[in-house]
Amino acid sequence: MSSPTHYLISAPGKVILFGEHAVVYGKTAIAGSLDGLRTYVLFEKREDGLLELNLPKLGLHLPLLWPTSALPYSKVAAVSKVADNNSSQELAFNEELLKELKPIVLDGNVKNKDIQEINEFQQIAASVFLYLYTSLEDKQTSWNGMTVHVISNLPVGAGLGSSASYSVCLATGLLLVLGHIPIPNSNEGNTDSSFSGSSSPMNLINRWAFQAEKVIHGTPSGIDNAVSTYGGAVSFTKGEMENVIGFQLLRFLLTSTKVPRDTRAQVAKVRVLYDKYPHIVDPIFEAIEGISLSFNEIVNSGASQSELNKKFEELIDLNHYLLNSLGVGHSSIDRVREITAQHSLHSKLTGAGGGGCVLTLLRDDVTSDEITKVKSALATLGFECFETQVGGNGVSVIDSSVTISKQEFLSSENVQQHFSGWKHFT
Amino acid sequence: MSSPTHYLISAPGKVILFGEHAVVYGKTAIAGSLDGLRTYVLFEKREDGLLELNLPKLGLHLPLLWPTSALPYSKVAAVSKVADNNSSQELAFNEELLKELKPIVLDGNVKNKDIQEINEFQQIAASVFLYLYTSLEDKQTSWNGMTVHVISNLPVGAGLGSSASYSVCLATGLLLVLGHIPIPNSNEGNTDSSFSGSSSPMNLINRWAFQAEKVIHGTPSGIDNAVSTYGGAVSFTKGEMENVIGFQLLRFLLTSTKVPRDTRAQVAKVRVLYDKYPHIVDPIFEAIEGISLSFNEIVNSGASQSELNKKFEELIDLNHYLLNSLGVGHSSIDRVREITAQHSLHSKLTGAGGGGCVLTLLRDDVTSDEITKVKSALATLGFECFETQVGGNGVSVIDSSVTISKQEFLSSENVQQHFSGWKHFT
Repeated sequence: MSSPTHYLISAPGKVILFGEHAVVYGKTAIAGSLDGLRTYVLFEKREDGLLELNLPKLGLHLPLLWPTSALPYSKVAAVSKVADNNSSQELAFNEELLKELKPIVLDGNVKNKDIQEINEFQQIAASVFLYLYTSLEDKQTSWNGMTVHVISNLPVGAGLGSSASYSVCLATGLLLVLGHIPIPNSNEGNTDSSFSGSSSPMNLINRWAFQAEKVIHGTPSGIDNAVSTYGGAVSFTKGEMENVIGFQLLRFLLTSTKVPRDTRAQVAKVRVLYDKYPHIVDPIFEAIEGISLSFNEIVNSGASQSELNKKFEELIDLNHYLLNSLGVGHSSIDRVREITAQHSLHSKLTGAGGGGCVLTLLRDDVTSDEITKVKSALATLGFECFETQVGGNGVSVIDSSVTISKQEFLSSENVQQHFSGWKHFT
Repeated sequence: MSSPTHYLISAPGKVILFGEHAVVYGKTAIAGSLDGLRTYVLFEKREDGLLELNLPKLGLHLPLLWPTSALPYSKVAAVSKVADNNSSQELAFNEELLKELKPIVLDGNVKNKDIQEINEFQQIAASVFLYLYTSLEDKQTSWNGMTVHVISNLPVGAGLGSSASYSVCLATGLLLVLGHIPIPNSNEGNTDSSFSGSSSPMNLINRWAFQAEKVIHGTPSGIDNAVSTYGGAVSFTKGEMENVIGFQLLRFLLTSTKVPRDTRAQVAKVRVLYDKYPHIVDPIFEAIEGISLSFNEIVNSGASQSELNKKFEELIDLNHYLLNSLGVGHSSIDRVREITAQHSLHSKLTGAGGGGCVLTLLRDDVTSDEITKVKSALATLGFECFETQVGGNGVSVIDSSVTISKQEFLSSENVQQHFSGWKHFT
């Protein structure tokens, strides 16, 4: 079998279902993968020794180009790379490599006739690619360079894990191209996302995606890349993650209030309240943790789907008001809640609050007609809605027998539906 | 000094400032007296051996009349009466007396030419009067019967302690007329409402008012009659009450949503939620208790009035959302909150919720012009507002040198302002 000349990878975004803010104080939170809201990355083989990165979604209208020979491989200890790949320990972050890459990132522009400005955010996205390529490069690959196209239907900076899904796609593609993990053989539908097996491809992808997240965020929690890698729902406490076993797909309406999110400001606001009234705020965090734990219990209670939905709605209401008591609500969020309540639907903010996105549970009995009405009511008020499912597949690779042209990839509005035959790692 | 031929007594209503619902589960709540929202009872001497009770506010357009000789004094043990009055122990409730009074209450109608229907609520109000009279009667009084007029500017059944203020007025008047306590000598402004001294007039009034509350409610908490008797603000935990020392008058707007209150239903609703999610609801109760405790701390912190008000507003917001999380909110309450928020004012429900009344703090810097605007905005939406102060005087007796005619009393819209020279027990 000849080596593939392209890979198409996709990885989902995430939403926090329950526990935002309380998680900062060591309480349990629940996050789930966003089915249908994903980042897609196409890797194409080159023969000219160049690495090409296309980030149109981030506002870069020209590709960035680097010769593979320009990368500082000497900063990567070959021995640690091999050892790390077979260990369950967290990979050590290579600060020196990142520093060395800084000027190289900007060189990516040199080959372009029109010099485009590369802002800090775009530089970071390029750094992730070069950091992973340099770290994972090994001489066994038959590729001599590659072209990478990134598209996504995830809103950037909305707290929906767009950076993690980008990190997971890049980690997966580079691990595949550079020979660290095999092409998955499992068929679609096999969504075994067990966290066991430290040297499994999934584990390796997650660990390298976490490295990428460190390039982007400095000190990420690790929850976003885990959800994007494994899919499903994850329970997260003080850095420890556990799959929510038995979790079934849940339908949600995800509404962007279009009020800009400022996570740092909201977290700081809660800290001020906590410092002022610890005897009030600490029990509120405990109550929020109680919601996350109740969610886990309910999922495994064997209750019927309609009972589950009823209870999830109660948890959504409880969490909504508790977040409001912490002062991270916003009138736009209340407005979305009101509109959805008029259709007997229950909503809560997701993420840091103070604007951002609102999650509305779509029970099984909610007809598409009703959903259309709610969406139109929300759109009338200037909100933007995405119908989505939470808890779907994690990172996926398209069957390599499917041929995709760059044009086909870039023109397909919903890549997930357009190409059949996605495969999943085990 | 000849014995007075009339007494005019007033006692305030109460509001719960913080801790409603959580108090049912043994957590601390804070209640305060409602200045200006009071019940007024005029006692007039008679010579004909009749007891006349006028309850126009309860819908009785004719007086009820009983001969003093018709009451079952034999059901009252004289010795226990004297002993009880000098003890700090709770008075034993006289179930037998109450039972005996049942048919006698209805006889109050017999002297009227037009037989009026007496509903259960009116019967209970009459029972309170006869229960207290029979229990406290002793041959030392120079009065041979009395006429009692009851008026009130407190809405009945709104959770504002109208029954307790009625109980306190009746207990005070009858203790005075029947020679158990002396007429107070203290001047207005002396509001020493220390809870110490088990045989003090205040203590005796509170204990007999608690008996009256038992006639009305069966198992009252005792918080309403304590606040109505002593005034100020009271911290209440598992039946134990403590004065909130250092509490200054706070201005509030009290808004009736006009949505009928059903305390029993709201308490039951919270119970269902508690039984379903104890690990969520118990910490919510703890957080609410934290609010009550913070209130006590803040009152005694020596902070400036503007700092105090700022913090009270934060506690109001916290408590509002926590009550909403318990499911006892109502869209009408949220509406009042919205309107008052438009004027930078903070509101929470008071009492059981699900409608009922909303408290809005009026900081010192809020001008009467602004208050007028808020009130008019609320009135436009059909809400009814009372401007009030919380934490004023408890039970008061008008200086006996002031002569009041029945007509004057009944025609005075605000008795508190109309008659000067109120005195307070110590």
